[in-house]
Amino acid sequence: MNFMVSEFAMDKGNIIEEEDGDGEIQSFFNSAPPLRNNGNDINAKLECFNEMNINGGRRRRRRRIVCVTSGGTTVPLEQRCVRYIDNFSSGHRGATSTEYFIKAGYSVIFLYRRGTFQPFCCSLPDDPLLQCFQLTDDESHIKVQDSYSEAVKRAIADHHSAVKNGFLLKLPFTTIFEYLQMLRMIAISFNKHGPNAMFYLAAAVSDFYVPWQTMAEHKIESASGPLNMQLAQVPKMLPVLRQHWAPKAFLISFKLETDSKILLKKAAAALEKYKMDMVVANELSTRKEEVVVVTRTENIRVRRDMNLDVDDDVEHPLIQLLVQRHSTHINTNSDLC
Amino acid sequence: MNFMVSEFAMDKGNIIEEEDGDGEIQSFFNSAPPLRNNGNDINAKLECFNEMNINGGRRRRRRRIVCVTSGGTTVPLEQRCVRYIDNFSSGHRGATSTEYFIKAGYSVIFLYRRGTFQPFCCSLPDDPLLQCFQLTDDESHIKVQDSYSEAVKRAIADHHSAVKNGFLLKLPFTTIFEYLQMLRMIAISFNKHGPNAMFYLAAAVSDFYVPWQTMAEHKIESASGPLNMQLAQVPKMLPVLRQHWAPKAFLISFKLETDSKILLKKAAAALEKYKMDMVVANELSTRKEEVVVVTRTENIRVRRDMNLDVDDDVEHPLIQLLVQRHSTHINTNSDLC
Repeated sequence: MNFMVSEFAMDKGNIIEEEDGDGEIQSFFNSAPPLRNNGNDINAKLECFNEMNINGGRRRRRRRIVCVTSGGTTVPLEQRCVRYIDNFSSGHRGATSTEYFIKAGYSVIFLYRRGTFQPFCCSLPDDPLLQCFQLTDDESHIKVQDSYSEAVKRAIADHHSAVKNGFLLKLPFTTIFEYLQMLRMIAISFNKHGPNAMFYLAAAVSDFYVPWQTMAEHKIESASGPLNMQLAQVPKMLPVLRQHWAPKAFLISFKLETDSKILLKKAAAALEKYKMDMVVANELSTRKEEVVVVTRTENIRVRRDMNLDVDDDVEHPLIQLLVQRHSTHINTNSDLC
Repeated sequence: MNFMVSEFAMDKGNIIEEEDGDGEIQSFFNSAPPLRNNGNDINAKLECFNEMNINGGRRRRRRRIVCVTSGGTTVPLEQRCVRYIDNFSSGHRGATSTEYFIKAGYSVIFLYRRGTFQPFCCSLPDDPLLQCFQLTDDESHIKVQDSYSEAVKRAIADHHSAVKNGFLLKLPFTTIFEYLQMLRMIAISFNKHGPNAMFYLAAAVSDFYVPWQTMAEHKIESASGPLNMQLAQVPKMLPVLRQHWAPKAFLISFKLETDSKILLKKAAAALEKYKMDMVVANELSTRKEEVVVVTRTENIRVRRDMNLDVDDDVEHPLIQLLVQRHSTHINTNSDLC
């Protein structure tokens, strides 16, 4: 069955009305500045992605799918935005995980913050064009420096092949308003995949924001002494994702803290409160070495393997574990497929 | 004469003590987290840059020099930083202007926010590695797509040549603390160049910040309702730059507003108050088309030339104007050289 763009438009209002007794979420979406072109470009891309991965494009078997969110969202402080609050995230976790998901046979929607790490490019320098390339001696051509040659070739080959085969759809965001609207569109479109769909919510999402209507139109004046700001809480979207947008999907959220003493407690609380399938707990200073996957029955410590000849990422064993648990989720819920 | 690293260390304390009666600036610098390696790497680079451009590396005549600042500074809200306030700036103005300064015979220190536009690369797509390159048909090599071939070759050739010849020194920053410490180091080191030195302060610098000592150590909790933040004003550094760090240099600051009604008035006020040589006034929505250069005697409207076959940048006529005025400044102050 084709996934019609018009279904989104018709469904959206009802879904939100049902989900939200106090109107907090409804009000967030109603007041958000609309996506460019009302999100029609994104809907068209999602339709195409879902179609390929449900019907397998005639040539291939149905693939599992995952939406990986990556990087931080911003909160504008002015409507004609000069200043904003940002959440730190390089996007390294999301980009690396996307590679492992694709290798494990998933098709990935990579919902990422503009300018953050991209899948297949994490091992390259910050500015690969200027740092990896040089002119040939006769200045007639560009060439890759020998030390980067293999890494650059592999990055371009793997990235282009994933996009071309429909295994990777990249959708960029900047603000919290864009992120949540796009996440909702993806989630509703994933409904068709039942338990085959996973959400891997690694993005660092703003907790506080200035509602669009109460925001200063112009740049805030700096001449009049200290600045007092009151920020409202962003309504929690995880319960809505669980209950209304993608009730059958396998949901993994992340909890980042800088204080290890409260980390596992907060991860367990999020698991319970938002009815996630798993919460990945990570502490800022050790997040590249180890994470703890918190489930209802156990806490599983996952560490990167430092004995290998080539240094491993913590995302390698992490995605292996999640893929296994997703299989169990699919088998348990096979009547929902 | 060599510019010794130790001179910085010895001078720093005295210069700041003199400059600041009420201790506001002293307190800002004292409380700022120190630069990596105490800034010794940066000092060594500055020493080398200044040496080449004063003595001309034996081979060339003395060049004029300019420090171009570019991109926005961040203000951390937590010491182990997860959230921060950012100032929007792509760095396009600073990067493009740097190219024109180098073409006009200047050596440039490009003090830029990590991840923003780089000189010679402004016309390329956001992600040149993934968007401009592809594998050859036999998958053995990487090649540039034909449509980008000339632009990519020119970017790499011009950039590498400028760096190799000592005409371009790139220094990245992220936070307001890094930016102001580095600006001070550059300014003090530029003293040797007298009126031959210019500052082109295009960076979008935070007006408000949280002093390091009063900052939360850990991530701010999101569970306890709305967030009230009180931000202090960043002490104004332009008067200190004028009076103490680089009194003989040609100083150009920028004024960005979203409200055109107050723009010129605020630019003129900044010119007067901070004793700049010129203030470039730009309005957010038209900043790529035109700017107004405000001096003590006139307001000069500078527009990009849209009649050329190849679209021009507003930075082209802007830098031409500034170079002329800098010549006048040098001639007027030739006793200071």
